[in-house]
Amino acid sequence: MSPITNGTLLFNEIPQGYPEPGKTTVYDTTQTIDLENVPLNGGILIKALVLSVDPYLRGKMRDPSIESYSPPFHIGQPLTNYGVGLVLRSGNPNIKVGEHIAGVINFQQYSVITDLKLSRVMVITKTEESIPWSAYVGVLGMPARTAFYAWKEYSKAKKGEVAFISSGAGAVGSMVIQLAKLDGLRVIASAGSDEKVEFMKQLGADVAFNYKTDDTVSVLKKEGPIDIYWDNVGGATLDAAFGSANRHARFLECGMITTYNSKDGYPFKNIFEIVSKRITINGFIEFDLTDKWKDEFYRVVPKKIASGEFKYAEDITNGLEHAGEAIRRIQTGQNIAKSVVLVAEDKP
Amino acid sequence: MSPITNGTLLFNEIPQGYPEPGKTTVYDTTQTIDLENVPLNGGILIKALVLSVDPYLRGKMRDPSIESYSPPFHIGQPLTNYGVGLVLRSGNPNIKVGEHIAGVINFQQYSVITDLKLSRVMVITKTEESIPWSAYVGVLGMPARTAFYAWKEYSKAKKGEVAFISSGAGAVGSMVIQLAKLDGLRVIASAGSDEKVEFMKQLGADVAFNYKTDDTVSVLKKEGPIDIYWDNVGGATLDAAFGSANRHARFLECGMITTYNSKDGYPFKNIFEIVSKRITINGFIEFDLTDKWKDEFYRVVPKKIASGEFKYAEDITNGLEHAGEAIRRIQTGQNIAKSVVLVAEDKP
Repeated sequence: MSPITNGTLLFNEIPQGYPEPGKTTVYDTTQTIDLENVPLNGGILIKALVLSVDPYLRGKMRDPSIESYSPPFHIGQPLTNYGVGLVLRSGNPNIKVGEHIAGVINFQQYSVITDLKLSRVMVITKTEESIPWSAYVGVLGMPARTAFYAWKEYSKAKKGEVAFISSGAGAVGSMVIQLAKLDGLRVIASAGSDEKVEFMKQLGADVAFNYKTDDTVSVLKKEGPIDIYWDNVGGATLDAAFGSANRHARFLECGMITTYNSKDGYPFKNIFEIVSKRITINGFIEFDLTDKWKDEFYRVVPKKIASGEFKYAEDITNGLEHAGEAIRRIQTGQNIAKSVVLVAEDKP
Repeated sequence: MSPITNGTLLFNEIPQGYPEPGKTTVYDTTQTIDLENVPLNGGILIKALVLSVDPYLRGKMRDPSIESYSPPFHIGQPLTNYGVGLVLRSGNPNIKVGEHIAGVINFQQYSVITDLKLSRVMVITKTEESIPWSAYVGVLGMPARTAFYAWKEYSKAKKGEVAFISSGAGAVGSMVIQLAKLDGLRVIASAGSDEKVEFMKQLGADVAFNYKTDDTVSVLKKEGPIDIYWDNVGGATLDAAFGSANRHARFLECGMITTYNSKDGYPFKNIFEIVSKRITINGFIEFDLTDKWKDEFYRVVPKKIASGEFKYAEDITNGLEHAGEAIRRIQTGQNIAKSVVLVAEDKP
């Protein structure tokens, strides 16, 4: 077999505001790959099946001299993120041809992974046949694991308490809503469209509102005080949560999407409530908590997904060539639920 | 004995900015008291010896309809705060004439305390004769207990780590510096005058600087990253601490004096570091932690004070009639170390 085209989404330019497809990222079809002869060097050759699109990717589109929790993308190189791949060839005794792996993979149709540890590669097997591979980057992937691990570690949830969850229709938030309901809490959830509000209600939120048409401060004043705030957005919403916090509230800081595309700081009026209400705040990253909570996650969640007890929704983009658009949509809040790019069918 | 004058510092007006003596508070000499005949109703009559002046009093000078962790002052009533009193008469079988009590007392020469629990009255006995009564509202009082309890509970200090302490010359901060050094940390401390910087160096701070002449961001960039931030000030200093936080840093939120006299929120630029660096933040109030740490405090600290291992300094105001000025000085940062008002000598 002669070399074939290997479509790749390249990082092209550091964005100032929102990432623009065709500018920040460019889909390149000039590269080719010889699937039979490309050297593996002890690694594996995979065909990408699905790729996750997440808010945190914006943080990787930075000047590489700036340190942060996740390594930067490099100009002219493929973007990377959590994905699922089909193993076409293997130079590693622990991974067989035809198996599926989850890990951090290139936005590229085919790629060779040599450092399996760095790429967090793990072989995945479907315990529940009805669950599609796309779920393994969403409701069974990094965002859902983030939700599960941090909820278990930091929420200190007690039955009857009130939890407020921002971006409640997103990949993380939608899992948090369901975990909070499972623990017997009253759940307030916000998102930026009526369609998302509808979805959050289906997930079990007791109060679901569109923050663009309903004032967050007023809703929390009426429905609070809140014992737990799961923050995905920061800024004014975080300030409103400070203002409506109950004594000894726990704030779980998962993300602050309002800060990612703007350099202006939000002027917090209620931040002193950290002292006054004795609030505990925890920032976290999924992989810090993996060792402690991974087994429980995979024991509990797939069953609840397959049985329908846990619901999920995917915002699917077909084709790697449209991934740049999906990346933009998630930064501007246009996605509904978990954003996934379907790259290829599950066959060699 | 006929009734005598009972000088009292009254709360007179809710301040908009800094509290003004003669306006926010008024020293009233029109009240009298009959020491021999004033009814006790099962309580005690005390002569106030010393009164503490603390930053948090500003929060009590608010519209009483606003809820906060500490009850508001009421217009026309005496201010109250931690103090030490000599018992002149007692209607309570557990407290004897001639004993000393610590508790929340009136800014008033003589007063009857009936609800001993509400006023947190405890009989205090000097274990170390050399320590003056004023120390029992400072280096052995609420601010020092706050420092000790929260450091023990939340710092998770490990030898060799770096701690940054703002308001390091104050009643709380000066104790925190010494606790951090005792635990083997490298200590950076800031305050607002060269005199305070000198004092912080005497307490053992490895790096002490005047934030008015040295830029906090630059100092932390050079001397950090920091593993622990003890916050007494909030605002720009807190933002600088976010920017120089190490991974898994702990922030102890004791107070935010920059927020007390202004309604403008500070625009935080680095607050996302809570997520990125996985920071844990804890707000706290001394009395939440009393039961757990009080005994250890009184076992450890008085000995270290008497031996000179722990140092302290007092900013003494003589006479209750000048207490309003002391209250203003602490809000504008003019006090050095613990502010105390000496009300009367230790004799009946």
